[in-house]
Amino acid sequence: MEVTGVQPPAWVQDAVFYQIFPDRFCNGDQANDPPGVRPWGEPPTPTSFFGGDLWGILKKLDYLENLGVNALYLTPIFLASTNHRYDTEDYFQVDPVLGGNTALRELVREAHRRKMRIILDGVFNHCGRGHPFFRDAQARRRQSPYGDWFMWEEEEPGYSCWAGCPGLPEWNHDNPQVREYLLSVVRYWLEEYEIDGWRLDTVEYLPPDFVREVYRTVKTVNPEAYVLGEVMGLGTPWFRHRALDGVMHYRLWEGLVHFFAEEVWDAPRFVRYVWHIWRSYPMWANFASYTLLGSHDKPRFLTLAGGERRKFLLAVAFLFAFPGAPAIYYGDEVGLAGGDDPDCRRCFPWEEVQPDHPILSVIGKLVRRRRETESLRRGGLKFPFAQGRALLLSRPFLGTETLLALNAGTKEEVLMLPSGRFREEQSGEFLSGTLRLPPYSFTFLKRVS
Amino acid sequence: MEVTGVQPPAWVQDAVFYQIFPDRFCNGDQANDPPGVRPWGEPPTPTSFFGGDLWGILKKLDYLENLGVNALYLTPIFLASTNHRYDTEDYFQVDPVLGGNTALRELVREAHRRKMRIILDGVFNHCGRGHPFFRDAQARRRQSPYGDWFMWEEEEPGYSCWAGCPGLPEWNHDNPQVREYLLSVVRYWLEEYEIDGWRLDTVEYLPPDFVREVYRTVKTVNPEAYVLGEVMGLGTPWFRHRALDGVMHYRLWEGLVHFFAEEVWDAPRFVRYVWHIWRSYPMWANFASYTLLGSHDKPRFLTLAGGERRKFLLAVAFLFAFPGAPAIYYGDEVGLAGGDDPDCRRCFPWEEVQPDHPILSVIGKLVRRRRETESLRRGGLKFPFAQGRALLLSRPFLGTETLLALNAGTKEEVLMLPSGRFREEQSGEFLSGTLRLPPYSFTFLKRVS
Repeated sequence: MEVTGVQPPAWVQDAVFYQIFPDRFCNGDQANDPPGVRPWGEPPTPTSFFGGDLWGILKKLDYLENLGVNALYLTPIFLASTNHRYDTEDYFQVDPVLGGNTALRELVREAHRRKMRIILDGVFNHCGRGHPFFRDAQARRRQSPYGDWFMWEEEEPGYSCWAGCPGLPEWNHDNPQVREYLLSVVRYWLEEYEIDGWRLDTVEYLPPDFVREVYRTVKTVNPEAYVLGEVMGLGTPWFRHRALDGVMHYRLWEGLVHFFAEEVWDAPRFVRYVWHIWRSYPMWANFASYTLLGSHDKPRFLTLAGGERRKFLLAVAFLFAFPGAPAIYYGDEVGLAGGDDPDCRRCFPWEEVQPDHPILSVIGKLVRRRRETESLRRGGLKFPFAQGRALLLSRPFLGTETLLALNAGTKEEVLMLPSGRFREEQSGEFLSGTLRLPPYSFTFLKRVS
Repeated sequence: MEVTGVQPPAWVQDAVFYQIFPDRFCNGDQANDPPGVRPWGEPPTPTSFFGGDLWGILKKLDYLENLGVNALYLTPIFLASTNHRYDTEDYFQVDPVLGGNTALRELVREAHRRKMRIILDGVFNHCGRGHPFFRDAQARRRQSPYGDWFMWEEEEPGYSCWAGCPGLPEWNHDNPQVREYLLSVVRYWLEEYEIDGWRLDTVEYLPPDFVREVYRTVKTVNPEAYVLGEVMGLGTPWFRHRALDGVMHYRLWEGLVHFFAEEVWDAPRFVRYVWHIWRSYPMWANFASYTLLGSHDKPRFLTLAGGERRKFLLAVAFLFAFPGAPAIYYGDEVGLAGGDDPDCRRCFPWEEVQPDHPILSVIGKLVRRRRETESLRRGGLKFPFAQGRALLLSRPFLGTETLLALNAGTKEEVLMLPSGRFREEQSGEFLSGTLRLPPYSFTFLKRVS
């Protein structure tokens, strides 16, 4: 079946994602904890386990639903030996420590009942050293049926492995049997467990034509399933190649860090940067990309902003006014801090969840505004004003127009509005001409004429 | 002809590149200056012309040869209307303002006589608005034979253009005639003018299979010609795809900036980062990539280092001890400063060229050391020590081993040497065990046992 011309699923541009690192979100069942589990909340090391599991996510679906989240992205959940599980040992088994396949079935069912989607992490570049095929291949080489499933090298450690990590032997994608095996994994969880898509790990390391095969396989099973790529560079080649619906938008993230967190760029520079990427990607890909302030691979945005809550919230406001599918990295909404990996993978501090939490309450409002405002999800993009540390972002949509006005500087700023009349959402006041904004503040406007 | 399995040309790992922005290097013939040329040395604006030309480069070949450079990369030289010439109007004509085709023929001849290679900038994603095919296509659309050579859109400006810049209409690479036209350009300059390769502009915007066609075309004409890609992200997909020999190593550049210029990383973090990329690329690609501290698209490294000469020189030492083809961006060797484009494109300050120039003299020595030391060009890579702001980089080669020891910090550091005996190149002294390095200093060692 030929699937070119397929558009990304429409639900993505209406999605609000929430990324979960399963070991650190919530421990729903202590009976399945791995041995040597650490006390919840202790600073994580590269090897510590905390016992979070899928039952824990299930328990917190109410919380996520209340927050307005309608899509989940889970980092790897299949059998593996590390806490991050990028070293898969069995692609057909959810790690028992996370609740096994049963818990996943339950989780998908409960999520779908709430009209919440769920995508899994597809780690198809490499497996773990403990994968039985690799163990057999390494032990028996030519005698093993899997001898040609990996790439043997003279140099240490004797086989091709991801970025030189011996724990992550790379699949030999030139072998059609390997491809068929990995594609059977792609199909299995879509067909049997009805997951809503795949986030593809380390896309830039995979042969491009294999990524396209994964894409086609997904779309053949379910054209409404989402294929999201972890791409650190420009997404353009992957879109040209029609191999992904969207990318994790690390390019946008870099701009957000420079403008909002590090404050090394002014607004015109930031807008120029964002506009450049916006115009470089096909429109379907802009609307189907996953926009983020954090992930398990980056220091927390709040930490990059020196712990300054107002800077962080301005970036959140920008993200939720920008096209694409905005994502919340678990814990960001309650001000969880953290530097580089593994520090950015701390346990979720559940005691922080209070209705008047100064970050949670603002993020909750931003999520709701986005869910309720079609122009913020479906509208075009314009930057009618950028000067000093202030800017206007506009989302025109079918004759309506919603604007985010923000001042990311230490001084009051006067923003020039486009011609016409606007209503400020907070105060309900009507405005035209200019808008004064206090330091580190934002507001939403609607065009009324 | 099938060309898979072709290896990058061996000369690349022995090359020391020099990048020239032709309008700003040297004005060799004032008779061909464009009207309104600005006084040499005035701060550049986005539209200023200074009259540099290929005759100027010819005049300075002695200077470059003395510096030890043996490969040139020129940003675009074909007929165009801007000073950067990324808006090609005639792919078969060197801009008369630069001296025309005659000057290029002379330049290649003179360069080759000195065993110097020369690569040109291949801008195949888009042309200039003034390209006659585009003008005809825009004027006559369906009536034009070029109506299908571009991609028409409803949105402003009415056609697909690079990153939304109306001055740079994008070619429709789905049209086989467009491909054949662009490939004829690729062939023409290789065959008729014997250039030594192409640097491909904005590779990430091109259809991957077209990049591969360019690669194969180049190798079919001359397997010894170099295909270098401007890739801002990871090079891995292009290497997997066998579409490039190497990339402009902006990923390495980012690490160099964080460690040497901004000093936000310590040595272990920097080494981890560099090692990760090193192990992510195929070895042939590591050795065939173009390593850089600056280009016409980035602020000057010296400027990023706050004008601190010692920080800049440490980064140069690292670059010239690292595998790949190190590049000098014109003027960097005499401490030319400059922020973001267009400031990083200032005129070369020829009055600065003095034998005792504190930067030029050190860079000259580093270039010579590399040219004379096979292990620095062909050796493997190890990092035997990294602590605080100090590190050891080792290049083992056929039983020899050359090490760069450096301290990029404000305090004296004691480095642990690997077991064995070493000779310090500067002093000729024999060392083992440890090495003390003053703040912001480096030295080279050779293993003697």
